[in-house]
Amino acid sequence: MTNHTQQSHVGVIGLGVMGKNLALNIADNGYHVAVFDLDTPKVNAAVAQEEIERKADTAPRMQSCNNLTEMLAKLVEPRVIVLSVPAGAPVDGVCKSLIEAGIEANDIVIDTGNSLWTDTVEREARYKGQFIFFSSAVSGGEVGARFGPSLMPSGDEKAWRYVEPIWKAIAAKVDSTTGLPIERFEPGNPVTEGEPCTTYIGPAGSGHYVKMVHNGIEYADMQLICEAYQLLSDGLGMSAHDIGDIFNAWNKGILNSYLMGISAEVLQQADPLTGKPLVEMILDKAGQKGTGLWTAVSSLQIGCPAPTIAEAVYARAVSTQKNLRMQLSSKLAGPEPVILSESDKAEFITNLEDALYCAKVCCYAQGFQLMAMAAKEQSWTLDFAEIAKIWRAGCIIRATFLQSITQAYQEDANLANLLMADTFSQTLSQKHFNWRKTVAASVMQGIPAPCISSAIAYYDSYRCEMLPANLLQGQRDFFGSHTFERTDKPAGEKYHLDWSAKERTLSKV
Amino acid sequence: MTNHTQQSHVGVIGLGVMGKNLALNIADNGYHVAVFDLDTPKVNAAVAQEEIERKADTAPRMQSCNNLTEMLAKLVEPRVIVLSVPAGAPVDGVCKSLIEAGIEANDIVIDTGNSLWTDTVEREARYKGQFIFFSSAVSGGEVGARFGPSLMPSGDEKAWRYVEPIWKAIAAKVDSTTGLPIERFEPGNPVTEGEPCTTYIGPAGSGHYVKMVHNGIEYADMQLICEAYQLLSDGLGMSAHDIGDIFNAWNKGILNSYLMGISAEVLQQADPLTGKPLVEMILDKAGQKGTGLWTAVSSLQIGCPAPTIAEAVYARAVSTQKNLRMQLSSKLAGPEPVILSESDKAEFITNLEDALYCAKVCCYAQGFQLMAMAAKEQSWTLDFAEIAKIWRAGCIIRATFLQSITQAYQEDANLANLLMADTFSQTLSQKHFNWRKTVAASVMQGIPAPCISSAIAYYDSYRCEMLPANLLQGQRDFFGSHTFERTDKPAGEKYHLDWSAKERTLSKV
Repeated sequence: MTNHTQQSHVGVIGLGVMGKNLALNIADNGYHVAVFDLDTPKVNAAVAQEEIERKADTAPRMQSCNNLTEMLAKLVEPRVIVLSVPAGAPVDGVCKSLIEAGIEANDIVIDTGNSLWTDTVEREARYKGQFIFFSSAVSGGEVGARFGPSLMPSGDEKAWRYVEPIWKAIAAKVDSTTGLPIERFEPGNPVTEGEPCTTYIGPAGSGHYVKMVHNGIEYADMQLICEAYQLLSDGLGMSAHDIGDIFNAWNKGILNSYLMGISAEVLQQADPLTGKPLVEMILDKAGQKGTGLWTAVSSLQIGCPAPTIAEAVYARAVSTQKNLRMQLSSKLAGPEPVILSESDKAEFITNLEDALYCAKVCCYAQGFQLMAMAAKEQSWTLDFAEIAKIWRAGCIIRATFLQSITQAYQEDANLANLLMADTFSQTLSQKHFNWRKTVAASVMQGIPAPCISSAIAYYDSYRCEMLPANLLQGQRDFFGSHTFERTDKPAGEKYHLDWSAKERTLSKV
Repeated sequence: MTNHTQQSHVGVIGLGVMGKNLALNIADNGYHVAVFDLDTPKVNAAVAQEEIERKADTAPRMQSCNNLTEMLAKLVEPRVIVLSVPAGAPVDGVCKSLIEAGIEANDIVIDTGNSLWTDTVEREARYKGQFIFFSSAVSGGEVGARFGPSLMPSGDEKAWRYVEPIWKAIAAKVDSTTGLPIERFEPGNPVTEGEPCTTYIGPAGSGHYVKMVHNGIEYADMQLICEAYQLLSDGLGMSAHDIGDIFNAWNKGILNSYLMGISAEVLQQADPLTGKPLVEMILDKAGQKGTGLWTAVSSLQIGCPAPTIAEAVYARAVSTQKNLRMQLSSKLAGPEPVILSESDKAEFITNLEDALYCAKVCCYAQGFQLMAMAAKEQSWTLDFAEIAKIWRAGCIIRATFLQSITQAYQEDANLANLLMADTFSQTLSQKHFNWRKTVAASVMQGIPAPCISSAIAYYDSYRCEMLPANLLQGQRDFFGSHTFERTDKPAGEKYHLDWSAKERTLSKV
């Protein structure tokens, strides 16, 4: 190991996949990094990898630390320390250890994990005066962390100005003329041109909230692709490989996205053990790490309709109940399989592409409306054009589609819902009929498509000037005297009918 | 006002609609009641109503109190005090005042509001030693409270044995041979025969949890009926009155329920101001008081699929965004209206009846599975046959259908999901095709039916031995190294493919 005397610019604590790759990314961009993990082999592995990947003519930029006291001594002041540890108690565990090791009031600790945003708000207050607790959500998985993630920092603004150059250096970049990611995955040759996918989101917690919603959208986007896979597989009897071809074709059009691309790759991957398609050897029980369900919970609490995101969370829950499904599969009847002609198959595929696009727009509409309603509740000023911009590259839901969202918010920063933007209302108005045919076909064939069909109910609900909630208010007034407003009286005036009297009279409450 | 010297058996604090009616119900059943409210006219009104309703030959059974000290002095010891105040801070406010007024360690305070169940757990612990904080959720609206609600008590078992006779007296009653409610709404002539709709649910919080889920099911049940209303109204162009006739007909069959009956009444009610159908004068913005969203939130946190309940909560949220809907209604395109022949209309109505029944079974399946999963998590032993039994009368979701649920759990107390019970799997297997036709028609006609269609996705998901979560796990392993299990390896063994390597290798993690 190289002897390393220079002070480091950044400390990284926690060298799992994400932490190690963030550290390598920071080093690649010219900063010196001191790294620590309770698991010493991970520290050695990170430093060794930096040595391998570093160009021959550059000095080493990564140094290992045996403990946090050593790390603090090795860092330029005020110190910048990046945490990449599991969300929850471990974050506070490290913070406590840093205090014991002598961290100072102006030092900045950046939590990059998937923390619950309210924890972040509490932590900023809790550690005030001992150090600056800052946070930056990270999206992009391991490759993103290594070569350019999307970064959503929030908290103390002075801290942001201090770390901003580092953050802009390591973030993913977008070509400013095309709006497309600049993708170069070469150690020692980081992308330095283009617009960096990071922007200051707002006060403590707001960045993690935005990241949480990003993940909620991601859950729905993944589930939509899975529903398309099942419709093509169970509905048309197509092989995994052929479905991969369709996904690759879609990935060249309006549905272009990172998730569509990797789905095609997964579908066309052979299993090293059996030679069969790998996907057919993977158990159909989906795990989750909380952010999707937090998004759904927040939407319920705020009163923002986000049914398609919630359906995606529930779809994972159903998937885990494999035993119950196996028992029910022989008890519950469904339709006979339908054999389609080649031309009907082609139409089915065309309809499905439109259905996926429309449903996807609804998921994003739900996510963005949720952020807007949360911002209002929390008195955050969120710049949705900027948020859409930093999701154009680096993050898991990156897609050309985000350029349209960026433009929609650039044209109207106060858009109440993405469906209000002409670009989306017009496209959905053109495509809705094919979307309907996909949903009807899935229902008649007995293939579950909870997100694609929930999204059309969402679309149709917002199309209704009148919803049947008038009957619902009548029911509520009947059994619980909950009162109702009238269409012919000013908003806010409450009325009650005396339902239990023989002569029912109306009274203003 | 009558001079009243006898000690009272029960104190009632909070004389809103529910509190006043509970007090009258208790008095009707022969107990003496001392009542208090911060709003003195409410106290006088309650006592006056008891005087009016009481038979001429009976002594007065209700006495007013000017403050809580007076109430404590007027109660038989150990005291039983019923709280009927809004959930949240007011409950603790009254508890604090009772402590100041000198409540004693053996006295029992019964919270009957819609409290969040975790608050109840905390309160039992908080007030231990000062008094016994007991809780009993109440369902049945104002009429139920007056003449017999469904009561879901939980907490200290000794306290339960003490209040049990009162609770059994005031609860709704079911004819033990038919399983149907014994309905008699006559002051001074309470129903004393039949099986009372109350049973000890379990430790603190469990009763309010069960009531919360009851309300979640209620949200879904109400929304299903509203969707049927909109399908008949917008789809077939039927008048409110004619839809009421259909609901009345359905109420005589498999869909018999309190909510179906009152919906028909609401639809056929004329507006006293305009003479038009009242429902057409009610604003279509639905309110909510939290229990439905708590149910959805709990299902997400526990990982129990309850999408139809969540969709019902979201439907209320969409209804409140009337301005946005009015703007979107002219921007988003939908299908042209369809004109059906008389025979097609009749078929549409038959299909819809089946669809409602099937979707309703799924809502109950979701609610009962949620209670089972919560019970496991909280180490409660819940008796689902008993819970279904006490919902057969008094409560808002009462329906003949609950007799079938009772029997299903009597046959198998450990039913993982109601769809596993032969009675439901067989009926749904017969009716699913008509259900599908309803969903397909609603989608093709552009009429939102979020709950009816979410329920069929739920049904079809559980029918799938294989779900596309295998692709989802492949995606997660691709971008985040989240690993997957294999169908050909033991459960719990985790695998990862090195997706970013040129030569992709599989490793056991």
